[in-house]
This record gives sequence, C-alpha cells and structure tokens, in this order.
Amino acid sequence: MKSKIELLDTTLRDGAQAVGISFSDCDKSCILSLLDSIGINLIESGVSNPKDREFLSNTKNAKLVSFGATCRKDFVPAQDEGLNSLVNAETSTVCIFGKSCAEQARRVLGVSAERNLQIIRQSVEYLKSKGKRVIFDAEHFFDAYFQDRHYALSALRAAFESGADTLVLCDTNGGTLPQRVYDATKETVCEFANSPHSPVIGIHAHNDCAMAVACTLAAVDAGARHVQGTFLGFGERCGNANLSSVIANLHFKTEFETDCDVKNLTAAARKIAEICNVKLPEDMPYVGAAAFAHKAGMHVDAVLKDERSFEHIPPSQVGNEHRLILSEVSGKSAVSEKLQSLFPHIERQHPKTKEILNEIKNLEKDGFQFDTADASFALLAERILEVYQPSFKLVRYSIHASQPDGTSTAEVCIDVDGVVTSVTENGNGPVNALDKALRGALIKHYPQIADMCLEDYKVRVVDFAAATGAMVRVLITSSDGKDSWTTVGVSRDIIEASWFALRDSFEYKLTGRRKFL
Amino acid sequence: MKSKIELLDTTLRDGAQAVGISFSDCDKSCILSLLDSIGINLIESGVSNPKDREFLSNTKNAKLVSFGATCRKDFVPAQDEGLNSLVNAETSTVCIFGKSCAEQARRVLGVSAERNLQIIRQSVEYLKSKGKRVIFDAEHFFDAYFQDRHYALSALRAAFESGADTLVLCDTNGGTLPQRVYDATKETVCEFANSPHSPVIGIHAHNDCAMAVACTLAAVDAGARHVQGTFLGFGERCGNANLSSVIANLHFKTEFETDCDVKNLTAAARKIAEICNVKLPEDMPYVGAAAFAHKAGMHVDAVLKDERSFEHIPPSQVGNEHRLILSEVSGKSAVSEKLQSLFPHIERQHPKTKEILNEIKNLEKDGFQFDTADASFALLAERILEVYQPSFKLVRYSIHASQPDGTSTAEVCIDVDGVVTSVTENGNGPVNALDKALRGALIKHYPQIADMCLEDYKVRVVDFAAATGAMVRVLITSSDGKDSWTTVGVSRDIIEASWFALRDSFEYKLTGRRKFL
Repeated sequence: MKSKIELLDTTLRDGAQAVGISFSDCDKSCILSLLDSIGINLIESGVSNPKDREFLSNTKNAKLVSFGATCRKDFVPAQDEGLNSLVNAETSTVCIFGKSCAEQARRVLGVSAERNLQIIRQSVEYLKSKGKRVIFDAEHFFDAYFQDRHYALSALRAAFESGADTLVLCDTNGGTLPQRVYDATKETVCEFANSPHSPVIGIHAHNDCAMAVACTLAAVDAGARHVQGTFLGFGERCGNANLSSVIANLHFKTEFETDCDVKNLTAAARKIAEICNVKLPEDMPYVGAAAFAHKAGMHVDAVLKDERSFEHIPPSQVGNEHRLILSEVSGKSAVSEKLQSLFPHIERQHPKTKEILNEIKNLEKDGFQFDTADASFALLAERILEVYQPSFKLVRYSIHASQPDGTSTAEVCIDVDGVVTSVTENGNGPVNALDKALRGALIKHYPQIADMCLEDYKVRVVDFAAATGAMVRVLITSSDGKDSWTTVGVSRDIIEASWFALRDSFEYKLTGRRKFL
Repeated sequence: MKSKIELLDTTLRDGAQAVGISFSDCDKSCILSLLDSIGINLIESGVSNPKDREFLSNTKNAKLVSFGATCRKDFVPAQDEGLNSLVNAETSTVCIFGKSCAEQARRVLGVSAERNLQIIRQSVEYLKSKGKRVIFDAEHFFDAYFQDRHYALSALRAAFESGADTLVLCDTNGGTLPQRVYDATKETVCEFANSPHSPVIGIHAHNDCAMAVACTLAAVDAGARHVQGTFLGFGERCGNANLSSVIANLHFKTEFETDCDVKNLTAAARKIAEICNVKLPEDMPYVGAAAFAHKAGMHVDAVLKDERSFEHIPPSQVGNEHRLILSEVSGKSAVSEKLQSLFPHIERQHPKTKEILNEIKNLEKDGFQFDTADASFALLAERILEVYQPSFKLVRYSIHASQPDGTSTAEVCIDVDGVVTSVTENGNGPVNALDKALRGALIKHYPQIADMCLEDYKVRVVDFAAATGAMVRVLITSSDGKDSWTTVGVSRDIIEASWFALRDSFEYKLTGRRKFL
C-alpha cells in the first residue's frame, strides 16, 4: 500500500510574505475553497481573526490551521497574547514555530539554551491542555542540526514530550542541499522511532538554492510524512516548496500518495494565480502554459509521432495540454470541444470551427483571453455561426469626470427594437457610472436583469511598454444568483474595454437561451 | 584541492526554444560576451553560420561550440550536410546528440538498435578525423538507462571508443528524480573508470519536475565534471538547469569549483534578462530582486539584528543586496532603515517613525501597497516629516470620453507658484489623455521633465466584492534614463487613482533633492 503524505498549504501566510502579493478577505476565501476542493489537508492562514471563522465553514475536507509563535520570553503561556489568540481561534489544529538553534535563541530571542527548551515545552503543553492538535515548526532546524545536533534534537524532544503531534523540520533560510536534508531527516526519524508512539515528522523547505521541491522529496524519502509549502511556490524571498510540483512528483514518480486529485492541478493553479493577480509563470512544471509546449521543429515532429518523445507524463493527467508553438493544429480540438458543450446540436467538425479558432488567435494577439471568459467566447461563436441576435444597440455613451469636485457621470443611450432610451447616472468613478446607466436603460425593457449583479471586475495592462497608452484587458464576472459568467473587453481605453465587457455581460444574460458553461 | 566543473551554456540554442524568446544577432553577441566575461567555459550557439565567426573573436576565455545531430540514417558522414556544417564551423569544439534508447531509435529515427550504434560511431569518428573536440549528448539517457541499461551504456561506449571526449547524460524529458540521476551517473562513471583514459561525464537536465538544479548537483556528486544548462534556466517547456543557481550552489555549498566569478552573477543575470526582453523573475535564487527581500516584521527585525537569521549567504557575495519590504506585516525597524537611506541626516529613532508606520498600515487597509512604490513612500515620509514642498497644485482636471466617436479628452489645470496653466489633450483613453495634459502643463514650468517617461502602468482591483464600484490600485513606474521610481494611487475611481500615481511620479522627479531608493 502506498504511504499517505499529509499536505499543509501556507499560501495565505508564507505566500502573503512574497513581494507584491497581498490578499483581500474575498481572495482568501476563494483560495481556501480552491485548496480545499483539490484535496489539500491543512490550510494555514496566519493569525486567526474573526473573519476566519466564516472561512472555516467553507471547507469540505481541509482543516484550517492557526499559526503563531511560542510564548514570549518574559511571559507564562496563559498570559501570552499570541498563544491565547491561538487558543481562542476556532481551529482544532494550531502550528507554532520555535527555535531549534541555541545560538539563534540567544541572539534573536535573547534567552538561554535551557530557557528556550522550557519555552517550547510550556507553549506546547498549554496548547495541548486546551485540546488542540499541535504542529511544531522547528525554525532553522537543518542549520541547527549541522551545528549542534544534540541541541536541535533536544528542541524537537521538548516539543514532542509536551505533546506535539507533528514535528516539522524547517529549512528556514533555504540554504540546505537535498542530500543533507535527507541525512538529517533520516537520523531524526530514527531518533524518534523507538518512542512508544512516534511523532509525524514534517518538512518545510524554501527555494533559495532552487531546490525546495528536491529537498521536500528527499525528506519524504527519509521518512517525513507531512509536507508544508505553497501551491504555486510563492513565499518570502525565493519562495516555498511549490506544492503543485510536489503533489505531481509524488503521484507520478514515487510510491507515496496524497489526497489530491492531480487532474485538477492545472485548473487550480491558474485560478489561484489569477486571484493573486500574478501571471502564472509559463514554465511552471506540470501546470504552466508552456510546461508541455514544443517549439523546435524536431521536437514538434517527434511529439506528433509519439508524445512520450518529449513529454515525461501525458499532460492531460494533470489537466494541462500540449501546445505546439507556431502550429495550426493546437487549439482546434479544444475549440471543437467547447463549441459542442455550448451548441450540442452542431456537428463535431463544424466547418466554422477553423474560423472561430483563427478569430480567437487574432484576438489573443491583441490581448484578449478566453480561457476564463466563457461568456465572451459564446457570443463570439454565435457571431461567427451567424445565430447572434443582439438585445440592444449602443447609440452612444458619454462620460464626464472631474476633480476636485469628484463627480463621475455617465450617459448611456441604447436602442431596443427601435425604442431609444437614455439614462444618466453618477457613480464611484466612470466605470461604475457607466454600469449603473446601462443597467438603468436596460431594465426598462428587460426586467429580468433585476436579479443580476456584478461579482468581480479585474483590470490588467497587457503591453507594459506603452505605459498609460497600453492595451488594457478587463474581465467582468456577473451572477444572477443561480449562475455566473465571465466576459472580456480589450482596448487602449480603459472605459471602452470596460464597456465591451459590460455589454457582453448583459447580452449573455439577456439572450438567455444558452447553456451556461 | 577543489575539483573543477566545466560549464556549457546553451541559452543561445536550448534557451531560444523557450516560448516567447528569440535572439537577434546583436542579442547573441551581447549574451556571448556576458557569458564569457563571467567565466562560462563553453557556449553553444546552435548550428554555426558565418555570423558566428565574428562572435568567435569576441570571447576572451570561453570557447564557442557548434551543435548538431549524428549523421542521418541514409547517409555516410562525409556526405551528411549537418555533420559537414559542424566540420566547416570555425569552432574547435562540437556537440552532437544521438539516441541512447533502442526503442526511440526505432520509433523516431526508424533505424535498428545496431544501426544506431553504427551511426554514433561513424559520426564521432568523422568529426574526430577533422580534429574537433567532440561532446556527445546522449539524448533520453536516463529513461534509456532504466529501461535497458546495457544498450544505454553501449551507445556511450560507441561514442567513447570512436574518440568522443565528453559523454553527456541528458534527461531530455526532465522526468528523472535526483536520486535516480545520481545512481545512473555513478554507475556510468564506474563503468568507464577502468578505461586507459576515461571520458569526462556530463549532465544535461531539464526542469519538468522542478528539480533540474538538484539533478545537476546529484550528477556532479556522482562524478560528472561537465554541466550543461542555461544561465537563467530558460529553455524548452519548463526550462533547463539554471546555471546561475548551479554556479552559486557549487561555489557556496560544495567542494567543487567553476571558473566563474560569483560576485558578478546578479549583474550578469539582470543584463541577460534585459537582452531576452524578459522580466527577471523576482524570486530567482541568488540573483532575483526579491532573493534577499524581507517583508514579515519578525524577519525584518531579525535580519537587522543579524543577517544570517534569514539569509543563507551574504547577498553581496553574489552582487545582490537585501531589501526590506514595507508593508502592513513589516515593522518599525524596516521603516527606520528606509528613512535613513532617504534622509541620512535624520536620527535613527526619529519620533515620527511610528507615525509613518501607522500611516502606511492605514493606507494599506485602503488598498495601498508600498513594497514596490518607493517614491510614494518617500513623498509620504516627507509630508509627515513636514519637509514636503509641492511643485504644483491641482486646480482641476476634467475628463470627457464618449462612444461611438471614440474620443477621450482631458483638461488639466495646475497652479505653479501662483501661475495657473491649463492644457487640454486627447489620448488613447482618459488616463493617457490625463497623462499628456499634465505633462503639457508641467513642461512649461519645469523643462527638466522632458527626459522623463512612463515605463509601466499597472492596475489592480483591490476589493472584488464591489465590482465596478471597487477600490482600484494603480502603480506607475517612471524613468528619466538614469533612475526609475514607482508610485501608487488608490481610489474607487480609476481615473482618480491614476491621477494620484501620476501626480506623485512627477512630484518625485521634480523635487529632485532626494536620493533615489
């Protein structure tokens, strides 16, 4: 039987320490449910706060973990604010970090080696007395181990003997080579093997030597059964172990298994990157858009003869696909597939498939993106299939915004079956005013849009070189309580890009006869 | 004595196969001299062409290597166009790849196992007869080895006995784990150890499992003394082994050495990324802008006490530096540090430090982000320190945009020392018009802004819930050819957020007396 590896994702805590990343409550909640649905066991979300309680009820399988430090040096646990916030958090599992290096304890905490062990013991005991599962992160473990093996193990023993359930060996600075991670982990596992009940040993690696994934697998090989990382590797400095890579490597290359469904890895990775508002690195193993891309003519030929020639696994097994760069072949079957799901009555090899594919390729060159904008894809396909019937036509819109008085006004004038309606609205900024004015004009003709609301509005500059004159992509997600759908607009003018996405969003709802993707 | 590792960089060949990368002759020439100056031994530049001859004379120490395949199946070497182009190339060293897997030879080349060995022998013999140093890249070596060890070694032996100087074990698909790379390399090294003169064994790893660097080090550990990769890891699919990481790891973490000067790693990495027109990933080990960045308050405190707390090597040793990132998670000491670098004359524990930190925390709650917006931080600090003197005041701006005529117009009216100037401009969208109008008004008073341009414009919706009424954060990076700086603006109105960032950007340039961060 395959041994099970427990996974703890710390995107919401260590990931938030990466340069340029910060999460709103809404982001947190989305990431949480994505990680949960893919099969991550434990999700660490920083110091708990009342908001976290809401998240708790959102997960199906994953457990939320509160994170904090051992007791401060001049306090007793029951009076330590940090520890008490962990006690009061409504998570049954908590993770605390402590020092495993005597020199660090002295230098950074300003306590003696013996007092540090006492702090660990008291902190763990206190949390255990409150009924928590305790994960102990031994900070700088590997550096400590190779400097003073005896003390590093004493720190682990202090935590273990006080009741810690999981002992995590942290390569905090990310400077340890995989072979040394293997050796230290192996010896640590052996050290605890004779205990009546032995602790689970875990690994927490950083990527400062470009080897976080390798260190993680080395530790697992040596007996670690709990792995910490972030789903996309985001984290302080060079990042944490990339869990999407770890999960796929364990699944395809080892005798270990996780609770994750690898088929969903790519979709989850792309959604999480989008929420982080970060472009998913194209070359990210397994899940990147170029992870199975072939450009060299020879490679393309060989892959067409036999995928195994240049692909270590079939990309479909992680929900990815291979891309043949500069080749017409790529995408056609994907378009066919999507058309079928929208218009089940049209035949599989519809003659217009190619035309739709070409149009998508042209639009993508301008900055459009259809992988999430399913509703805009549907409208585009309808236009090319010549079944599109617009619900309204724009006569004109006109925006006025000024400072310091801070007003934004939009007038929208539309034509519905020959009846021209004009509405003017103020808003928080011109896009909001435009949205309100269009809604105001439409509702007179189509009362069914009353239950429709905009859930998400995203803006991304597509070509950076042109600065404020650059192409801008707007993605809008709307919902009517039952379904939600996303549309895209691109223009050098952010108002116009927003208009395109808004227009499609209402159109999609109004034409109504389509199956939602 | 430390053993020397020979390095072969294939950025110009394998790197050019990455999605989105292509090189002009000028780019090639620049990269070549950068790689040469840093101490790379061999530089592979694809099929040689007359242009390459010029490059040859450009290098001081590095040797240029021509790359090609073994003889085609129906040819004899002397009549094979590819081999002859290698013979005619003015490089004394050539690298050819051949199959080491019988099944691949059959499936892709369409030749028998025995004929494949003959092709290898004849190709190497021919090149040796022309006086070349021959590097033999055994394609798919590791897959072949674990499928049919005997045949994989026969392919290497065929090359070696025909005179190949270096035998490179290629993990072509990037699917092999480091431990298996170690085992196969070790056995291969042993296999050839008894030859009267033994070949140099090399490693060529890909990053499809996120472990190319680890595989490379594992092979070196097992006896490989020649390493192939690309300086920044760019390459087909998930990329090649990142040589900048390999070089630093060998230097700082092992008993091996290279001819590279690690002090120049960061500068070289940034220049090569610039030539490739790729943003150097901030989290790239050793050389990325965030490789030694600290954001969490506790980390910042500890690093200020002792750099070793969260840095596995001193960043200056690779020509990098540490960055203290300002954010809600960072503490007082990071603000102190940054203030000092801006205003060296103010005392270390300035009483206003706390006020500045609190202001940053409040603004971040509204969606501001100061970790990259250094110029906005400087202006904010000046305001709180009461040394801020604005170069201009806004009297009003007014925006008008409408469709279908597609015009965007901005009027900006400013007051400079009591002189009121008003300029109206059209643009691609309202933000571009605003930028042009402000610039037009300012240049009449401040001709020094003529050399200033906007390099980057980024937009991010901060709280998604409110959709088009949500808070929007705009980041603008400007440059005057010498320095560049970033400013931030936040508002529910995207025009106003852009205005704030624009205003700060010009203000920062104009006040001029500050040291750039």
